[in-house]
Order: sequence, then C-alpha cells, then structure tokens
Amino acid sequence: MEKTLHFKDSDASELEPFLPTETLLQASAAQGRPFVTLTFATSLDSSLSLAPGTRTRLSGPESKAMTHHLRSRHDAICIGVGTAVADDPGLNCRIEGVGLDRQPRPVVIDPRGRWDLTARSKVLEVARAGLGLAPFMVTAHGGDVNPELRTLLEEHGGKVIEVDTSPGGGGDGGDGGGPGDDGSHPGNHIRWGDILAALLREGLRSVMIEGGGRVINSLLAPACHDLVDSVIVTIAPTWLGQGSVNVSPDRVHDERGDPVPPARLSSVSWHPFGEDAVLCGRLGHNPGNP
Amino acid sequence: MEKTLHFKDSDASELEPFLPTETLLQASAAQGRPFVTLTFATSLDSSLSLAPGTRTRLSGPESKAMTHHLRSRHDAICIGVGTAVADDPGLNCRIEGVGLDRQPRPVVIDPRGRWDLTARSKVLEVARAGLGLAPFMVTAHGGDVNPELRTLLEEHGGKVIEVDTSPGGGGDGGDGGGPGDDGSHPGNHIRWGDILAALLREGLRSVMIEGGGRVINSLLAPACHDLVDSVIVTIAPTWLGQGSVNVSPDRVHDERGDPVPPARLSSVSWHPFGEDAVLCGRLGHNPGNP
Repeated sequence: MEKTLHFKDSDASELEPFLPTETLLQASAAQGRPFVTLTFATSLDSSLSLAPGTRTRLSGPESKAMTHHLRSRHDAICIGVGTAVADDPGLNCRIEGVGLDRQPRPVVIDPRGRWDLTARSKVLEVARAGLGLAPFMVTAHGGDVNPELRTLLEEHGGKVIEVDTSPGGGGDGGDGGGPGDDGSHPGNHIRWGDILAALLREGLRSVMIEGGGRVINSLLAPACHDLVDSVIVTIAPTWLGQGSVNVSPDRVHDERGDPVPPARLSSVSWHPFGEDAVLCGRLGHNPGNP
Repeated sequence: MEKTLHFKDSDASELEPFLPTETLLQASAAQGRPFVTLTFATSLDSSLSLAPGTRTRLSGPESKAMTHHLRSRHDAICIGVGTAVADDPGLNCRIEGVGLDRQPRPVVIDPRGRWDLTARSKVLEVARAGLGLAPFMVTAHGGDVNPELRTLLEEHGGKVIEVDTSPGGGGDGGDGGGPGDDGSHPGNHIRWGDILAALLREGLRSVMIEGGGRVINSLLAPACHDLVDSVIVTIAPTWLGQGSVNVSPDRVHDERGDPVPPARLSSVSWHPFGEDAVLCGRLGHNPGNP
C-alpha cells in the first residue's frame, strides 16, 4: 500500500475558510444536500490528462498532500464513472493519523452502469485492507446494474444507490444539470440535485467532487452553481497541448445571443504549493454570473 | 487619452528575476536575438477572449498595471496581426513617469499584409499625441504591402521590416517555428528566429510578446523554447467556456507515438495580484521537455 502523507498545519489553515463547518453543514442540509466542494488539478491549458482514459501526473507532492487533507475533511469523495474506469483509483485518505472512522465514503456516479469494478479494483483492495471504506455507486433508477457488481459492492460494505431520472440529455446543465455519461445515449439523465439529495439521505453531510471532465464541466454550468459551496483548483505550470481532456464548461449566451463567461469565482484566494498554485473560491451569487 | 497607472515597487521586485538585465541582454544578442518575454492573460480554461475578433476583459486593475510595468522594461512590445485587427490596441506604456524616451516600440507581425491600419488606429493616435512610438510591421519579404499603409507608417516614424520566408506552413513549430497567420494560405512562412534577428538589427535588445493565440501557441512549441527567456502568465478566476480563443500548443508525441506535454515552466514563482495570479517561469532546458 502507498505511504501516508503529511500536510502542514500552516498550509491547512489557509484552506480552512473553504471547508465545511457545523454551521455550513446544517445550512446545506436545510437545502436538502451535503456541503459540496469541487476540486481538481489542471495544466495551464486547463487539461486534466493528456488523452481520454489516461492518467497524467500533473501536480507535485505538496498538492497531493493537500488533496488528501481535503479528503479527511469530507464525509464522501465523488468521481464520475469515466475516471473510475480510467484511473482505478483507491479513493481513500492517506493523511497520517486518519483512522477508518474518519475515512471518506467513495462515491462513483455511473448513470448507465458502465463501471468495470472487480475484486481486484484498487478501491476494493483498499477497503479489504481496512484503509478505506467500500464505495457507493449512484445509478439511474430502473437501469441495468450487473448483479455480480452489486453483490461485490455489498460484500465489501458498499451499495448501489438508485436515483430517479429526468427528461433531457445528460450534462446539459439547462434544467438543473446532470453529470453526463459517455455522450452516446442522449435521453433520460440523473440530476445533480437528485444525486446530492440521495447522498444526504445516506448520512453523507459533505462531499468532495474530484472529477473527471464531464462531472466538473456539468457543475460549472450556471444551473448548478447553487449546488457548489467551494471550488479548489490546483494549477500545474505545464501545458498538455491540443487534444487533451479539458475543463471548460459549455458555452453560455446572454439574451442578445452574445457569449458570456459561464462561471467566475468570488472570495478568491491563491496559495502557491511547491511549483503549483491552489486557487480557492466560491461559485454563484456574484455579479459576474449570468 | 487613458490615465496613467501605478505599480508598487514591492510588486515590481517580485518580477525582477524574470526581466532583462545588461548581462542577459548581451547573452541574447550573442545568440542573434533580443531578450524575449512571453506574456499574456487567460481565464482558468486558458482562453484569451470569448470569441475570435473580440476583446474580453479578463484581468483586474492590479495585473493591468503589471503589464504596463513590464512594457516599461522592454525595448519593444510585439503582437500578431490578428490581435492588432481585433483589439486596435494603443501599445504604449502608461506607467507614470515613463517619458517618450522610455516608450517601447510596438511591433506587429503580419506575414501576409492583413493589417487594416488607418490614421485613426489607436497606435497612431498615441504616436501623434507623443505618448508612444510609431509601430514597426514585420512582413514576409516580397509579399504585398499596401503602399498607403507603408507611407502612413513612415509618416509617423514607423516602418515595414521584411523578413525572408522559409518553406512550410506557418506556426507548425516543426522547423524552427513561425507565428502563423490566418491559416487559409499554407505555404511559405516567416520563422521566429528570423523575426527576432531582424528586431535585434533594428537595435531592439528586448521584446515583450503579448499575443494573440496563434503567436503564443507557436512560441510554446518545443522548437521555439530556446527563443523565449521568460514567460509571465496572468490567470483570472473565471471560465470563458467552450468555443473561446485558447492558449494550448499543438500536440507533441514521443518516439513511441504517445502524447507528451509540449511545454513546462521551470524556476516557477506565483504572485497573487488582486483576484488574479501571475505565474513567472522559464521554458526549455528542463527535464520535463521532450
């Protein structure tokens, strides 16, 4: 298993204003959802990886420790199925001194049952080793879930959570916004509001959403800004070039048909960590948003 | 005319390690070119503007003052013709106390003579008002230069500089790299090495290259890294969305055909300025580059 990480208290205190407190958790719960932190690492050209389905090491050791510190401060960590398939991630918290009782719950958003989970997937290896919790899979109500996958999840202490679908294409953000899927099957989709409500019903009062591209872009759409409490972006001083997997939300137009910025952060703070910079801010409720 | 700007000495000192000194100017001249600083401002999704031909205000007042401070420290400021046409920029330095003797020379790279300069263009208004120098236009040797434009430039104290062409498409970076043009006429192009040598022959010992997208992407190609001394990027905490004008260099592959990052900065430093961050670094000669 990989070694534990250390994150300096002085660095941690800089992030504190963007992390959930009991007051903020109660405020989110009153809205029927967990506290939501959106976090990811990109290159200077806003790319997550060099190509779809590949993992690109972008950020340095300091920002990696930061990611695990953030995980220790949330009840759940959430990714899209594309990232689960591409990266086979462990999805636990490796900060020193974080016991199983403080591990976040891994959540994989998989509307159409594409996840290729097996007993050898890293997230289950981690769970069997007592170093993390077994994952929850969120899927469309009434969709196909491989019975073997469901059994495998439940044997490890995880489960399948079914969420009602809504009309419209996934991830269009136009009617409340969904996380999207592989784009090949337009039709019913699940909305972020419904996903988050289901997680709160499971007792998960805070969730850190980590990727991938479709998931991030769908949450940066204006229709979803009210669902996101904090945004924490790590930027590495490199360019991945054309054809990489990009973070860039769908285009938004004003009433005259002119393009306008889909999202802007407010209450911004920047924190250099090694060669990377970490940007913290909030979405929504600011004049720059349409 | 627009008002003058002030840039704090303490902020200026942070940028000093990336600016030309007499020693560095001599070193660049020994290579037959000016000291080159590449600088631009992008959104978080690496966009310069919402759409081609439009100007999008990205950075705040603090970074604007920084840009003008940088201009005061270079003999020339250089943009591509696309930016000259889209923005009609003044291209002078508005830092308080910078007299005409310290104004940088505006340089417009226009391989095929597309510039729509008239007597009412802002850069000429600024020159007539004694607030900046008249521009030099760099074009392909033997190409079409509108005689009226040439006369207009010369009447203001500017000139046309012709540079020899090389075989190959513009901006492909494969054989020394050119700044590209409008992409509609593949064929002969002018190389950055030849452009920079011509500027040095004009006595311009340092040049700050400011955009737009084609110019920046061509200089971030590996073939041009040795021509760039410093890179200074301002990042604004906003997303412009799909379809914006992007900074992202052409894809680069390794010998096995796998994509690799086209560029990485070394000697990195990050400086928060208001809501933006300014990233300084150097290209080339680092292990991360192919």
